Amino acid sequence: MALQDILAERPVKRGGIGSAVAILRQRFGERLVTGEDVRRAHAHSTTYLPNQMPDAVVFAETEAEVQEIVRICGDHATPIVAFGTGSSLEGHINAPQGGISLDLSRMDKVLAVHPEDLDCVVEPGVTREALNAYLRDTGLFFPIDPGANASLGGMAATRASGTNAVRYGTMRDNVIGLTAVMADGRVIRTARRAKKTSAGYDLTRLLVGSEGTLGIITSLNLKLYGIPETILAGVCPFPDVDSACNAVIQTIQLGLPVARIELLDTQSMQATITYAQLDLEARPSLFLEFHGSPAGVAEQAELFAAIAAEHGGGPFRSAERAEDRAKLWKARHDLYWAAQGLRPGAKAIATDVCVPISRLAECIAETQADIEASGLLAPIVGHVGDGNFHTTLLLDVADPREIAAAEGFMARLAERAVAMDGTCTGEHGVGQGKRAYLRRELGDAVDVMRAIKMALDPKDILNPGKILP
Amino acid sequence: MALQDILAERPVKRGGIGSAVAILRQRFGERLVTGEDVRRAHAHSTTYLPNQMPDAVVFAETEAEVQEIVRICGDHATPIVAFGTGSSLEGHINAPQGGISLDLSRMDKVLAVHPEDLDCVVEPGVTREALNAYLRDTGLFFPIDPGANASLGGMAATRASGTNAVRYGTMRDNVIGLTAVMADGRVIRTARRAKKTSAGYDLTRLLVGSEGTLGIITSLNLKLYGIPETILAGVCPFPDVDSACNAVIQTIQLGLPVARIELLDTQSMQATITYAQLDLEARPSLFLEFHGSPAGVAEQAELFAAIAAEHGGGPFRSAERAEDRAKLWKARHDLYWAAQGLRPGAKAIATDVCVPISRLAECIAETQADIEASGLLAPIVGHVGDGNFHTTLLLDVADPREIAAAEGFMARLAERAVAMDGTCTGEHGVGQGKRAYLRRELGDAVDVMRAIKMALDPKDILNPGKILP
Repeated sequence: MALQDILAERPVKRGGIGSAVAILRQRFGERLVTGEDVRRAHAHSTTYLPNQMPDAVVFAETEAEVQEIVRICGDHATPIVAFGTGSSLEGHINAPQGGISLDLSRMDKVLAVHPEDLDCVVEPGVTREALNAYLRDTGLFFPIDPGANASLGGMAATRASGTNAVRYGTMRDNVIGLTAVMADGRVIRTARRAKKTSAGYDLTRLLVGSEGTLGIITSLNLKLYGIPETILAGVCPFPDVDSACNAVIQTIQLGLPVARIELLDTQSMQATITYAQLDLEARPSLFLEFHGSPAGVAEQAELFAAIAAEHGGGPFRSAERAEDRAKLWKARHDLYWAAQGLRPGAKAIATDVCVPISRLAECIAETQADIEASGLLAPIVGHVGDGNFHTTLLLDVADPREIAAAEGFMARLAERAVAMDGTCTGEHGVGQGKRAYLRRELGDAVDVMRAIKMALDPKDILNPGKILP
Repeated sequence: MALQDILAERPVKRGGIGSAVAILRQRFGERLVTGEDVRRAHAHSTTYLPNQMPDAVVFAETEAEVQEIVRICGDHATPIVAFGTGSSLEGHINAPQGGISLDLSRMDKVLAVHPEDLDCVVEPGVTREALNAYLRDTGLFFPIDPGANASLGGMAATRASGTNAVRYGTMRDNVIGLTAVMADGRVIRTARRAKKTSAGYDLTRLLVGSEGTLGIITSLNLKLYGIPETILAGVCPFPDVDSACNAVIQTIQLGLPVARIELLDTQSMQATITYAQLDLEARPSLFLEFHGSPAGVAEQAELFAAIAAEHGGGPFRSAERAEDRAKLWKARHDLYWAAQGLRPGAKAIATDVCVPISRLAECIAETQADIEASGLLAPIVGHVGDGNFHTTLLLDVADPREIAAAEGFMARLAERAVAMDGTCTGEHGVGQGKRAYLRRELGDAVDVMRAIKMALDPKDILNPGKILP
């Protein structure tokens, strides 16, 4: 869907919104905000998509309040866009049909930690960093790390993953159960705390990744993990992206339980070396991390070094000290900002595809050729253990020719991934930005999604204009 | 739901069935069977539930045929019960409203193996043993092992797991995507082959565990794993069930990546020692397996032995030779048959609950007390790393008082598990047998399940009378 099509959706405003806002104002007083700055901030995200403001922002503090808000909005067919921290990347928090932004950031309590069961229960506004700070003294941690300090509710809603997913899975794998307010105001709990269950349809997984279109998540039961006895991180350069990819394939095939395995191409390395002042070479490199016992970690690192050498890579330089590790991963996470240094003044726009790992090298090579042919600047970085990679387009957004080139590139990238039996989004979600590719990827399955949406939200009040084309 | 309630559903037959059978006979000739033996066999499973025969059995050989059968049945509001190998345990394959048993066992081709991507594509009638035999020369294996040589389609439909789930997850975690014929005859593919995706609703997970009530699975894209370099199995006795459970909790908490950790109580040990001629003591014991490198496996076994000793258990006796390992796990898998040796002539009926691991020892202790108070004989065995355990009731099914006692016991067991924030079924599924407990466990979430069912199968032709109360 091109920019202008998304913009064209703006006028589809609904009649009942004014009444809903008036009722909510009466009920929530100062927690109902209509000031333009706050409304704009609630539709702002680091995307190329235009800002489509809600009519009002309401700050909920309890599940009962969420329920009340959903019922009021339901009565007046008013859209509700759930909001966590606003770090999503595909226009998820835009309000193309107006309505309410439902800010859940004040629902930020850790409700329970069960160390014996390796799980916890949190409200949706708890961020992943806040949870890990809270857990500090327990010896446990929550591994999913999409880079941004996102809210856990938002991470569940977009099925987020990130650098640790190759070992710990994504939000799909780490939400045991959740409570949600459905479009009719009903609160459901999708599962109890048992580690596995065969009791009926997997509503947990249906809501994880539904991007606020099927229900508003009000609490999450999450898996936790013991902090590994030993953590070893390191960097390994390669002569080219292809050999790095082949080393990744072999690493995964051998079942080496890497905790992180991230590819940075030459441009990404250049950007990060400058931005984070790293003493590294600007060559395609893998950033890795191993978790385990001291002996286990040493064995993993040794095995990986041997694989890298087989593919012409190396040496593998390890960072054992916690501060060196932290520096390395901060550099990786700051890549979005570092990339902007390659073209000062440009806007950085992140894309996201995922392919079977056997096609990864080919997909990246074709994408690099496409970037060059399109006259674009776009370093590549990837969670390559999962076959997932991003390009960070550096654009002069004032130049319509550049925007058109970028749009063409993004469409070809999504289609290339799908043609390789992959997906147009490995972890960012569909939002507004990827709706155009969903049917190409999933065909008639999209109609089944729509049937579910219509059954559970017949008035289309929950985040309308998202996911479904 | 008591036996008589399930029996009472029998008369609810539908008018169109005769027409559907006639059309299917014309179309499928000898592959449409109405003989009583075949019909009875297609509703037979190792449960306490009565056999409720379909009106006919049709053997499909292709996805297009499944599509045709579903359309014909849809036109005549005729129930369709998908059938794999008939090893399910909660009446999944019964036909309480009559209709067609759709036998998928002839759809038994492995369609593709992608060693580089660690995945394969299979038809639903491939059994787990057949898949592993097919994979023998690739160095790969499919780990999910519910004991019975079930069909992979059936395993997906019931969200099966078994002994390896503590390390490799359940069918939920190991189906990358699938194709299914929906109630309207539409074929959908739920996901492409990328290892992760955020593209829309997770229809894969919705269909996994839907027990044939939302769609008929016609192919599965499954994860594969490299056969571990080293496998070490072993047995460790404990003074009592409680100390064994506590050793399990500590093992899991420490993040020891055990591949299998199974509890057998004294009665189960007695049964298996006799049946499988094992040179072991009849004390509560854990059967374990470790996967990894030689050094990693040795480290795991050593750590576990230390944990066991702390809880008064041991010695840990390992079985490194493949034939000793095989003997051990065959003994574990044959427990259902071994248990019958404790009471010759009795029928063995397996139950299934799962609780948070912190409640496991308590749940088993209360269950043992309940078994004794009820005058029943029921050895306990469990996938305790997941908090999942089974009792195998040994019943004289001709004695109504015994049946009543067993029903009361099973109801209390399900309620006990739910009261401990667990589930009435960790891996067997709901079928007919657990319908009565679903609302107690999941409350209003059951209405959301029903709304989805009604949206996707408005005529209720797909396995009616299952899952939803």
